[in-house]
Amino acid sequence: MEVLHMNMNKGDGETSYAKNSLLQPANEYGVSRPWCSSGPNSLTVVSEMVHVVDTISHQMGQLLPELRVYLNDLPTNDFNSLFQSLPELYKKLESDCNGINEGNCYIWGSPGSFYGRLFPLNSLHFVHSSSCLHWLSQAPLGLEATHLNKEKLYISKSSSTSVVKAYQQQFHKDFSLFLRSRAQEMVVKGRMVLSFMGRHSPDPSADEACYHWELMARALMSLALDGLVEKESIDSFNAPYYAPSLEEVQQEVEKEGSFIIDCDEALEIEYDGGDSSGLKDSRGTRVAKIVRAVMEPMIESHFHLQAETMDELFRRFAKLMDDSFSKRRLYFVNLLISFVKKG
Amino acid sequence: MEVLHMNMNKGDGETSYAKNSLLQPANEYGVSRPWCSSGPNSLTVVSEMVHVVDTISHQMGQLLPELRVYLNDLPTNDFNSLFQSLPELYKKLESDCNGINEGNCYIWGSPGSFYGRLFPLNSLHFVHSSSCLHWLSQAPLGLEATHLNKEKLYISKSSSTSVVKAYQQQFHKDFSLFLRSRAQEMVVKGRMVLSFMGRHSPDPSADEACYHWELMARALMSLALDGLVEKESIDSFNAPYYAPSLEEVQQEVEKEGSFIIDCDEALEIEYDGGDSSGLKDSRGTRVAKIVRAVMEPMIESHFHLQAETMDELFRRFAKLMDDSFSKRRLYFVNLLISFVKKG
Repeated sequence: MEVLHMNMNKGDGETSYAKNSLLQPANEYGVSRPWCSSGPNSLTVVSEMVHVVDTISHQMGQLLPELRVYLNDLPTNDFNSLFQSLPELYKKLESDCNGINEGNCYIWGSPGSFYGRLFPLNSLHFVHSSSCLHWLSQAPLGLEATHLNKEKLYISKSSSTSVVKAYQQQFHKDFSLFLRSRAQEMVVKGRMVLSFMGRHSPDPSADEACYHWELMARALMSLALDGLVEKESIDSFNAPYYAPSLEEVQQEVEKEGSFIIDCDEALEIEYDGGDSSGLKDSRGTRVAKIVRAVMEPMIESHFHLQAETMDELFRRFAKLMDDSFSKRRLYFVNLLISFVKKG
Repeated sequence: MEVLHMNMNKGDGETSYAKNSLLQPANEYGVSRPWCSSGPNSLTVVSEMVHVVDTISHQMGQLLPELRVYLNDLPTNDFNSLFQSLPELYKKLESDCNGINEGNCYIWGSPGSFYGRLFPLNSLHFVHSSSCLHWLSQAPLGLEATHLNKEKLYISKSSSTSVVKAYQQQFHKDFSLFLRSRAQEMVVKGRMVLSFMGRHSPDPSADEACYHWELMARALMSLALDGLVEKESIDSFNAPYYAPSLEEVQQEVEKEGSFIIDCDEALEIEYDGGDSSGLKDSRGTRVAKIVRAVMEPMIESHFHLQAETMDELFRRFAKLMDDSFSKRRLYFVNLLISFVKKG
């Protein structure tokens, strides 16, 4: 389930990034993959990529090309645990793929923000990012100082147009920079596959894009009523997040001009993954656990809650989730888009 | 002082590795640098390299070439703290070097053992490793099982020829693999600068190569007499270390055949750095601190000492050092060797 990819490392919540993997056409492949979470998920994708290249090489009667894989994340994220699982991955690849040996598959770490240049010109053949690009490089400027977005953490039904505009501008700034950077780094006909949170609706305040932030705002406001959180800090918090529509993404791609979208899909993903049979926790509690893994670091760094207050926050959030589940279907929309770099 | 570069990360003591940096000839430079310790030392060298390339490019009236820097260490070592200091390094480079910007200097992490392939064929232009190659990939095989090296941690005056031979064979195996791997990775006329612990004397049991291990063995044996360490564990411990003579290095280089040594130097480095004016600690205590930073992880993983016993071990080691300092000069020999890859 895609939403599990959202799990992030401690302390790195406010900005999440992804892995880049790119493959080279003739006899050398470069791969770049931004990830959001360290751990096995990231390397599963690398492993799958290598298998695909291995299988196709075999079918074409060719030797496996030299593979260069870059794993990108912010410099503050945890590369150590990822790197520690590399020896096992190499061992597995060598036993599973005929052509892989220590001399033709290289996996490196690329620390830096993918909102900017990370790789040399024309050096990437395949880029993959999963569950990262809904994270903005920062909260929209101007909202914090003016407390324009009172009692809310993100765009909501009651948001003024200036709040929505600030978010849209930040998304435009970040996503166009992402596209421009990758366009410089990728070879002609290189392919990029991105998956991230979005929405079906043209309305940025649609529930599918905002409802989890809405419930988190309510949980925080209930803590504020009990004097456990300052209302002031809720007013000044704005999530560095934007769930765009496919049309908004298409507009940015057309404006930037280097890519065509050759394939897209919008998948609805139940908040709790859908299958609740045989599980002990309530649906709300399970969603709270998933959301906590992603949001806790950024909530912590803004609100400086004590451990018990943090627990209480997610208990109330889980309760609000359970109440909502009893009334309606709750889902995210995950955009899955494949790009080709123009000639 | 070179010996300070020996500081290693917690838990990674048994094998220490280094940074590779390589520069490309025409308009793109690849740099690879293995390091032993995370932290500022590693990045100082990177910074100096970039400055040199920047200055020479300027003098030649050329634009700065694209720089690709790989920082290599074992997957178990701490890349996180190194990566966290990268944003500051980039900022400094951009302000200090005219030509540097986010689009022409890339620094990546390369997790893996440098005793084996780490990079694609003919991709490195400059390789640098400081204070790493005296660490073997493992303790010589066979010594542990047979307890051939009783009461000692490394080669000593009383070592049998089979102990010395086992160490020399392991050095030969490791160093020739290192040379073979780098030879495949480096471009013709690429340059490699290595610095590591060695010796002047043709005798592998010369004090300059062994005396710190000798004193550590004595300190451990005194703990064994007091029942604080099992003598058995001292018998079975053999340091994964070898301090070769320049002649031994030259022999390996000639056998491997891909490199010529165009410059070498053997520097004597006082155990305590030489300058003791105005320092509070005794010379022995200062050496004990430096040695502890390097040896504690490997001692810990073999002997499983309690914290107080570990403190006591290094107190006794410091005392033995102070006694020795009163009688003689104590120094390491650091080999600094520059290699050029043959055409």
